[in-house]
Amino acid sequence: MTDSKAYAAAVLRRCDELAAFSEEEDRLTRRFATPALGRAGEAVRRWMEAAGLAVRRDAIGNVIGRLGENARRTLLIGSHLDTVRDAGRYDGMLGVLVAIGCLERLRDEGLSLPYAVEVLAFADEEGVRYGTRYLGSGVVAGRFDPADLDRRDSGGVTLADAVSEFGGDPDGLAEAHLEPADLIGYYEVHIEQGPVLEAGGVPLGVVTAIAGQTGGRVVFNGEAGHAGTVPMALRRDALGAAAEFVTAVETVARGEDGVVATVGELEVQDGARNVIPGRVVLSLDVRHADDAVRRSVLTRLHERAVSIAETRGVAFGWQVGPGTPSVGCSAELTELVAEAVVSCGHPVLRLTSGAGHDAAMLATITPVAMLFVRCAGGVSHNPAESVTVDDVAAAIDVTTRFLEIVG
Amino acid sequence: MTDSKAYAAAVLRRCDELAAFSEEEDRLTRRFATPALGRAGEAVRRWMEAAGLAVRRDAIGNVIGRLGENARRTLLIGSHLDTVRDAGRYDGMLGVLVAIGCLERLRDEGLSLPYAVEVLAFADEEGVRYGTRYLGSGVVAGRFDPADLDRRDSGGVTLADAVSEFGGDPDGLAEAHLEPADLIGYYEVHIEQGPVLEAGGVPLGVVTAIAGQTGGRVVFNGEAGHAGTVPMALRRDALGAAAEFVTAVETVARGEDGVVATVGELEVQDGARNVIPGRVVLSLDVRHADDAVRRSVLTRLHERAVSIAETRGVAFGWQVGPGTPSVGCSAELTELVAEAVVSCGHPVLRLTSGAGHDAAMLATITPVAMLFVRCAGGVSHNPAESVTVDDVAAAIDVTTRFLEIVG
Repeated sequence: MTDSKAYAAAVLRRCDELAAFSEEEDRLTRRFATPALGRAGEAVRRWMEAAGLAVRRDAIGNVIGRLGENARRTLLIGSHLDTVRDAGRYDGMLGVLVAIGCLERLRDEGLSLPYAVEVLAFADEEGVRYGTRYLGSGVVAGRFDPADLDRRDSGGVTLADAVSEFGGDPDGLAEAHLEPADLIGYYEVHIEQGPVLEAGGVPLGVVTAIAGQTGGRVVFNGEAGHAGTVPMALRRDALGAAAEFVTAVETVARGEDGVVATVGELEVQDGARNVIPGRVVLSLDVRHADDAVRRSVLTRLHERAVSIAETRGVAFGWQVGPGTPSVGCSAELTELVAEAVVSCGHPVLRLTSGAGHDAAMLATITPVAMLFVRCAGGVSHNPAESVTVDDVAAAIDVTTRFLEIVG
Repeated sequence: MTDSKAYAAAVLRRCDELAAFSEEEDRLTRRFATPALGRAGEAVRRWMEAAGLAVRRDAIGNVIGRLGENARRTLLIGSHLDTVRDAGRYDGMLGVLVAIGCLERLRDEGLSLPYAVEVLAFADEEGVRYGTRYLGSGVVAGRFDPADLDRRDSGGVTLADAVSEFGGDPDGLAEAHLEPADLIGYYEVHIEQGPVLEAGGVPLGVVTAIAGQTGGRVVFNGEAGHAGTVPMALRRDALGAAAEFVTAVETVARGEDGVVATVGELEVQDGARNVIPGRVVLSLDVRHADDAVRRSVLTRLHERAVSIAETRGVAFGWQVGPGTPSVGCSAELTELVAEAVVSCGHPVLRLTSGAGHDAAMLATITPVAMLFVRCAGGVSHNPAESVTVDDVAAAIDVTTRFLEIVG
């Protein structure tokens, strides 16, 4: 077997090359259907062609490279090429480039697979430009909503015009999906975006599910007052209530295995040093792989908010929607991934993905599996995103092995 | 004795008249040395003169009306004419107009006092324009700092130029103070700006001290992270730490009689729903009539912050200065105020002022006493400030009685 490190080094070099395709001079920002994304797609097309893939672009602008012209069934491997603002260079791109690297390696080793592989480089996963999620994989999964064509970006450009401008086909989006019956499944390599692998001292993680998540706003309405003149006993301090709730969010989440719950935003309205807070608005984000657990956590948090508000004589508002359900990875494919991890000499660390991924969309049409790669400090969506060549080599080894056994 | 209600009604009418003198069309804003303040001062001068007072303006623009040309000793009664932005019509002005009303009443009843009275209408207490505090009473107390003459307002106008433009004398500010040896004391009527009198069902309050206060900023620096991917156990959530501290501020303050402690501002920096807060900055405000108690509360809060930060592995910054000391009211004058309250048939409710007042500055040269008037909902610094004619009549009765017994 060839040394996967050379392929890993090439993958990292290509990540660097893609990072140069940005809308902004000094940092990486590459939203859907921008010229920067177009240039990134062209580079990927060249690398795919060099690896022997037949490349096409679909109606939304996903770049798709196919190996195995006449095979009956197809394994999909992919991830996305768009980024958030001021992004890192691995979130998304790593998965696409690892897939290409593995196919190059198989070719170099003279090996062929008994099925076709399509490498999918999605044009939009982050949804920064149009406030969508999974625009690229959504089209592939046949879940594009034509009503979205009327969405406008911050410059007033409709999604329909952006797709046309990008060389896509707004009228063909609904028909651009892949045929589920032809598919073996979908496999995605992605940086972990969290610190679990690093903390566990392992390079790779086997994803068991993509957590369901609920987001919302909670509002506490007390009574503003002079910080010097209203005795503690007569106060209805909205921030006091909010602080108690933030603590409750932590406590409840810590008490339930695998739950993450976060208050990421908190605003004291008309706050001033010498004014007792009258109104506080905060965000709530709760995630878990088991939707029933997530709902139960939300129920308990709502009860706590009711109790805090009652005790303190403040009003509260609970603007929390139903959220998005958890997506389970295929048990069968995931076992093959774990088997590949073991056969490459790494420990199997199974974990839930707390972030969403294209795999969640593909799961609506085919079994999915995901492999996480350790990233420094768990950092993502930040120029400080970092992976090691050794860990990427491990991902290439495992993915190559997975390709060998999945057929 | 004449009916104080007629005088109270006149006081409220004059409060309404003064409220028309504003820098802004639709709301009351009257900062130091503005034309609006000049017009308010002219109205007050006319009312003073009509009450038989000899009126002068001092170097900073305070309007001073004197009754009793040749008396050896002088009682000062005053408050301020400037306001915050979008102010109410009683904070400050009520004290000036009650003083004038009482002197009119004594004159109408044919009574004269065995000492002189000077009614002081201060040109600046709120300090909104120059970020000063007690500019008017500071000059009277001989505590003006000439370095302040170089301060500039938001439009770039120096304090020196503003004083000149206002008809004052920048060069005479240091010499414009009153002579302590000539003074009996200083007495001030003011709305409570808090809910204690309303909660107690009494119209008036006898102020025992003006609380010392400490303000500052506390910063918690944790680590930002993805709300979906960082397990609870691996988080260093700055808002979690801040929430625990806010709760500690409440708990410690509630445990110590008379302490008020407030977190009025709290900012989650770069907050987003799906990001674990990395940095939180909050304000702290602690007040008590006993400086030792205030310092002890601050020591305990600092200990709590240390402990919270250590337990959570977050860093914290403590930017809390020494604060301003408490100012005690004169025991002797305050007993006379209480005696006057009793003789007018009201219960004596003694309380600390959690807000600062001109009396704090006058206390540096003469004994001071203060009478609080109940205000609706404890609201101040707001157009909703409100007092009843009955409560103002009670203040006039008590003040008249105080004038009769203080000599």
